[in-house]
Amino acid sequence: MNFQLNNVPLRTQKPRKNGLTMVMDKGLSVRQAEDLVAVGAAYIDFVKLGWTTAYITPKLEEKLAVYRDAGVAPYFGGTLFEAFIIRNQFDDFLRLLEKYQLGYAEISDGSITMPHEEKCEYIAKVAQHATVISEIGSKDNTKIMAPYKWISLMKAELEAGTWRLIAESRESGNVGLYRESGEVRQGLVDEILNEIPNEKIIWEAPLKSQQVYFIHLLGPNVNLGNISTNEIIALETTRLGLRGDTFHNFI
Amino acid sequence: MNFQLNNVPLRTQKPRKNGLTMVMDKGLSVRQAEDLVAVGAAYIDFVKLGWTTAYITPKLEEKLAVYRDAGVAPYFGGTLFEAFIIRNQFDDFLRLLEKYQLGYAEISDGSITMPHEEKCEYIAKVAQHATVISEIGSKDNTKIMAPYKWISLMKAELEAGTWRLIAESRESGNVGLYRESGEVRQGLVDEILNEIPNEKIIWEAPLKSQQVYFIHLLGPNVNLGNISTNEIIALETTRLGLRGDTFHNFI
Amino acid sequence: MNFQLNNVPLRTQKPRKNGLTMVMDKGLSVRQAEDLVAVGAAYIDFVKLGWTTAYITPKLEEKLAVYRDAGVAPYFGGTLFEAFIIRNQFDDFLRLLEKYQLGYAEISDGSITMPHEEKCEYIAKVAQHATVISEIGSKDNTKIMAPYKWISLMKAELEAGTWRLIAESRESGNVGLYRESGEVRQGLVDEILNEIPNEKIIWEAPLKSQQVYFIHLLGPNVNLGNISTNEIIALETTRLGLRGDTFHNFI
Repeated sequence: MNFQLNNVPLRTQKPRKNGLTMVMDKGLSVRQAEDLVAVGAAYIDFVKLGWTTAYITPKLEEKLAVYRDAGVAPYFGGTLFEAFIIRNQFDDFLRLLEKYQLGYAEISDGSITMPHEEKCEYIAKVAQHATVISEIGSKDNTKIMAPYKWISLMKAELEAGTWRLIAESRESGNVGLYRESGEVRQGLVDEILNEIPNEKIIWEAPLKSQQVYFIHLLGPNVNLGNISTNEIIALETTRLGLRGDTFHNFI
Repeated sequence: MNFQLNNVPLRTQKPRKNGLTMVMDKGLSVRQAEDLVAVGAAYIDFVKLGWTTAYITPKLEEKLAVYRDAGVAPYFGGTLFEAFIIRNQFDDFLRLLEKYQLGYAEISDGSITMPHEEKCEYIAKVAQHATVISEIGSKDNTKIMAPYKWISLMKAELEAGTWRLIAESRESGNVGLYRESGEVRQGLVDEILNEIPNEKIIWEAPLKSQQVYFIHLLGPNVNLGNISTNEIIALETTRLGLRGDTFHNFI
Repeated sequence: MNFQLNNVPLRTQKPRKNGLTMVMDKGLSVRQAEDLVAVGAAYIDFVKLGWTTAYITPKLEEKLAVYRDAGVAPYFGGTLFEAFIIRNQFDDFLRLLEKYQLGYAEISDGSITMPHEEKCEYIAKVAQHATVISEIGSKDNTKIMAPYKWISLMKAELEAGTWRLIAESRESGNVGLYRESGEVRQGLVDEILNEIPNEKIIWEAPLKSQQVYFIHLLGPNVNLGNISTNEIIALETTRLGLRGDTFHNFI
């Protein structure tokens, strides 16, 4: 902190188990990645290379090194896993984790249809090679799941070996946890929290209103994901009760 | 590509005639232009310096050099042509093309009113100095043209010497081809395609939903314009059927 | 200007008293700040480090130096003042101005409730240490003030020693001067202008439609604030009547 403000809530410090911030990189250059960590190294835990962008991003290894050198763990979006699966290239996916020395892997079924037992088998297999983050929820906003279904999928994936569950929102924040308007499905969130430990979930919350919602509900150290690369400092002030939307929360 | 994924559709390679991507630069610094080509050189064919931004952008020649050195052709937005015309400075416009060694020039009438024969005469004259890209459609969303009108203008401009037609959307994607909501005027697009070769058109499509629409309709190698500078990698994955919105398209 | 266009309206030159542009930096890295001034040094008068971002921005002093060296005055957002006040740390706030050698200070009450005489006392006190910019309007869009109230607050703050009044909009442009849709409260603006000299006001106008509104109403040299860091060149062309929205205004 650059100066003293009293009674600012404590944030967990890196390496964090709670209060995680996951940023979505949808195609930064190496230098832009350097800019991101220049402001965000202390605040960002993970950078997800969104969906399949890792496939075509130039100087990928250099960019991964920038993140790692700053103490930020990069990983590839779940859609990349799905792109391998739909092509029957699961072994190639495992080789990919090794090639890029990725400590984390995201397993999802947002764009493909697969029996849930099969997804859980993949979670179990991948968990032998990397820490698994698995994503629940479709990218298709016409496929709405009832809360009991979210909960049963989440429990099964935790049992299969998932480290953290991600609740889908896409980059745009209008599916999964959210209505098409971006509004939070509050009943869904309540029911999930009644059955699944909050710490096990990373809430994708790309829009400010969504970040504010979860910080109000679960405090400054809630796990948030799909944060835009230019909103890191903004989010951190929101967590600390130092932005209009959360100003009176924590003092 | 950084690794092997089977059955990914073939993209045309540079120098491309189809599958063109035109990006809109609305005032990048020289270093930001370097960042843009660091990720996008293989994917971007043209950078349009949006509307009249070339007039006041510092270090313009340096920025043009960055684009050219990366194999990306820069050109100036059509509103700049109109700014010269409305001041009776057409000769100065021609000198500008020479001064900056611009191989391409955009001719439009989105902000001024001019008889269409006059626009076609300008196209013919400018075509002697540069490859002409001409733009159809008003920037004013109260001026809606019937499809037959679009088609007759397009045919006349091709005859006058236009290399590619651009269908107007503005940066915001809510005029011309699109309703104020950003939704595509599908009937208009269908009628245009019935009369004008698809390859002759660059569809301005600044919003993801618009890009997805044209990729669904015309395949990965459709010509798209007014792409935001931070959406290059994202667009390319969408073209390749590697993003949720187009995931099942091409395998 | 890179080339000659006739009959372009005259813009005031730096150091400006009218036609001010205030940009909002919500967490740029030092290098991104360099990029901002590389294109904007001639056009930007102030950079506001939005709300409390100065508290947690790494390399803050380096960034302030980048702005100053480019002839751009940096200052801290009014929410930071409020964060000190709500903690009874006003003296620390004064020390902050000194520590960072800030020539300007923003005083606001957008997130806290304080009697207006108290706000005016703070304005008077801070004015002994820095040039005061004071902000009118709540960040809460359920708190709508009648025009006569805006005017009486503005008059009192000018009397207390404010140099320029800022009319609140937030980063999102949907409170204060604006309806939730972002539309300008035109009646409010008219009444304010009837009583307060236009030159004394910086209109926060983050959205293009809002910038266009004020340029139409008050000309190219209106004072505008909360401009996004990547819209500097765009705004300047709009001021000059060189963008579609203001194309016929000034010739």
